[in-house]
Amino acid sequence: MSYRIESLERLTEHFSCLPGVGRKTAQRMAFAVLNFEPEEAEDFAAAILEAKNSIHYCPICQAMTDEPTCSVCSDPERDRSVICVVEDTRSVISIERVRQYNGLYHVLHGVISPMKGMSPDKLRLRELVERINDEVKEVIVATNPTVEGETTAMYIAKLLSPYGIKVSRLAYGVPVGADLEYADEVTLHRAIMGRQSL
Amino acid sequence: MSYRIESLERLTEHFSCLPGVGRKTAQRMAFAVLNFEPEEAEDFAAAILEAKNSIHYCPICQAMTDEPTCSVCSDPERDRSVICVVEDTRSVISIERVRQYNGLYHVLHGVISPMKGMSPDKLRLRELVERINDEVKEVIVATNPTVEGETTAMYIAKLLSPYGIKVSRLAYGVPVGADLEYADEVTLHRAIMGRQSL
Repeated sequence: MSYRIESLERLTEHFSCLPGVGRKTAQRMAFAVLNFEPEEAEDFAAAILEAKNSIHYCPICQAMTDEPTCSVCSDPERDRSVICVVEDTRSVISIERVRQYNGLYHVLHGVISPMKGMSPDKLRLRELVERINDEVKEVIVATNPTVEGETTAMYIAKLLSPYGIKVSRLAYGVPVGADLEYADEVTLHRAIMGRQSL
Repeated sequence: MSYRIESLERLTEHFSCLPGVGRKTAQRMAFAVLNFEPEEAEDFAAAILEAKNSIHYCPICQAMTDEPTCSVCSDPERDRSVICVVEDTRSVISIERVRQYNGLYHVLHGVISPMKGMSPDKLRLRELVERINDEVKEVIVATNPTVEGETTAMYIAKLLSPYGIKVSRLAYGVPVGADLEYADEVTLHRAIMGRQSL
């Protein structure tokens, strides 16, 4: 019989289920856990269970939270006249990192994609429409700059048109710090179309 | 207040303690865990605790195991006349993967490194010497091909010289499939020195 440690194999198996982790990296991680202090390993295991058990969707904006409502929705300082519509909670974190946006969010939990069987009724669009009231002045659609994201943005614009509020979309263009040489044709075309006067 | 999920932050923190995992990858992993099935997350947490609690060092070869003695030491089919000395348990796994070696192992848990404060008495050398008996014919030193690994190999050769058993070292040379152009000078020198007649 060759060398085999069952419990290490099992742990390696779990790590290899994580995104971007292959067999070898997973084994390296499992060994790292064995070298943790016992309390550290216990905290790690507890953090997995706690995150999994305590995190749910905010009943207002549908973003993940471990509070009754998320920290943005429950913050009286945030501007309630703007709602930024995003695909998932990760996008909320990305936009928050910029520290420029002070409005609210709405998480769709997906984009319209007939290929993946995602029809509009599977997104949290009903919840978005329910949030539209006199206070809301603008909805910024910040879905990803993909075909599906674009389709979803169009759908939302049409969906909200009866309410007479402004629906905007993130600007397309060349990323800051990039080289024009490496910009693809479509991006460059959109950057020229959306040029701004100085 | 900006968007923040405490339990997600804590889980991200734990993932970022793993080798080769930065802040962003850790966050991606934490989100992946949230998308696991509840049983899968529970199994993951349990696997961490189980591995951490059940794995100890084999009293014979000092390799990690979750059995009373490791699967190699307890296998009657293995050749007890050869002991392969390695730095850590990971090396055992690497050598086992080749499926060529059928002897026993001995894990030192480190190499001699004055820089890192690793003196010979901190390695499992006493345990190695205790294993030397009439049955053992050869000790293969398979420490890593580094200065520290080499020093340790020399030390072991000297340590075992009174017992009159053969002490060998892994062959140095160009790795199979590599290009000579990219081989460093020292490796190439060792490959020439250790040339084999055809």
